Amino acid sequence: MISPHITLVGAGPGDPDLITRKGLKAIQSADVILYDALSSDELLDEAPAHAQKIFVGKRAGCHYKKQEEINRLIVACAFEYGHVVRLKGGDSFVFGRGQEEAAFARTHGIDVTVVPGISSCISLPALQGVAPTSRGYADSFWVLTAHTRDHGLSADLLLAPRSDATVIILMGLGRLDQICALWDAEGKGDLPAMVIQNGSRPNEKCWLGTVNDISERVFAEKDKGPGIIVLGQTVSQHPDFKLKISDLAFKI
Amino acid sequence: MISPHITLVGAGPGDPDLITRKGLKAIQSADVILYDALSSDELLDEAPAHAQKIFVGKRAGCHYKKQEEINRLIVACAFEYGHVVRLKGGDSFVFGRGQEEAAFARTHGIDVTVVPGISSCISLPALQGVAPTSRGYADSFWVLTAHTRDHGLSADLLLAPRSDATVIILMGLGRLDQICALWDAEGKGDLPAMVIQNGSRPNEKCWLGTVNDISERVFAEKDKGPGIIVLGQTVSQHPDFKLKISDLAFKI
Repeated sequence: MISPHITLVGAGPGDPDLITRKGLKAIQSADVILYDALSSDELLDEAPAHAQKIFVGKRAGCHYKKQEEINRLIVACAFEYGHVVRLKGGDSFVFGRGQEEAAFARTHGIDVTVVPGISSCISLPALQGVAPTSRGYADSFWVLTAHTRDHGLSADLLLAPRSDATVIILMGLGRLDQICALWDAEGKGDLPAMVIQNGSRPNEKCWLGTVNDISERVFAEKDKGPGIIVLGQTVSQHPDFKLKISDLAFKI
Repeated sequence: MISPHITLVGAGPGDPDLITRKGLKAIQSADVILYDALSSDELLDEAPAHAQKIFVGKRAGCHYKKQEEINRLIVACAFEYGHVVRLKGGDSFVFGRGQEEAAFARTHGIDVTVVPGISSCISLPALQGVAPTSRGYADSFWVLTAHTRDHGLSADLLLAPRSDATVIILMGLGRLDQICALWDAEGKGDLPAMVIQNGSRPNEKCWLGTVNDISERVFAEKDKGPGIIVLGQTVSQHPDFKLKISDLAFKI
């Protein structure tokens, strides 16, 4: 007697200890786990011995499966095996397409439970000592992607430089020059800026600078792969900020 | 031999299972826990038997201790007892003053570890079935507070109605009319709106409507206490949205 059920679990930003207790319990009761590229296989090891583990993420920038295929696979597995855990990095509902997967499953009459995850947009700056909001530095934060569906820059990315928010941009590293130029045009070339790659993992990298020089600093190391961009006064709270700037004789 | 150490732990939005595994481990190795008003005492029960548990939060709207007192108490406890866990609802770095506590401790030479928590700003809409970002609905989300340090409305709250972001406002329920008027003035009176109180807890309440009617809907029930406000097209994805609206003959 199969009782189909789907749990969308956010795995957090990379460190396997940053999953929630609720997410862990879901994994421990899974019949099938459909997972994206994660930082660590340790979370998969928490699954029961009988559970199937199916990779449906991206590798080397290529989607292994299309979203529509994933949606259908989730539903098929739930009817066939019972409890399906859909495990994703970060939070499923922040640029994660969890909403689409949940909606598709519900149209097939399957119960969906949402287990929020620690989103990289807040936690990775925080782990670097930079609070998205902080009294006297920023009263708000704004999370955007540079990578819109039609491959253009979103209208909100044009408005964001006019705000006092801490601006956090995901999937934008390939357009870092273009993004910084928007802030510079608003007279904010000296605004503190930070880029984080592989956040919360052993190979984490973090660059500090200003809107005007962060791109050069990041690309001088010719690093590749996804990263997050943080622009705002609050970046100056990073413990190494003054040091890094003074090293290179930039003035803030 | 006391080895002073401080861990800032975000407890998550209310459900005690929404703490991270890392946060739980910190609690389980605490000598002292300094905690705010939380949804549940269950997390405190995870502490070792010898651990002291000290309440430093707000009750009935009154601060029990001032921030400066809390900062000094954290440091004093670390030197006296060793591992201090500073436990807060949500995430310590989102309107949580964790940055100030960490900075104060570091000036006293104490190591600080940050354990991110599930922030209510993302998770509470998600638990209601509303993703902060969702293809075709919103490419970004902007988290603000209506309650600025000088008791005015922040400049960003005036700019936010011009964006396409999902706007999430914390500590703003007392100013709901004033906030909705800003969106209405921008021609967005019909934008879907949601208010959540006691999110992720057994007594959770959620109201759905539009910018123009949400205030009336919420206050008709004369409920009080903190809540979060969500304004944006993505609110229309709530499973009950159409039903609630049609019940009252509003058009979307």
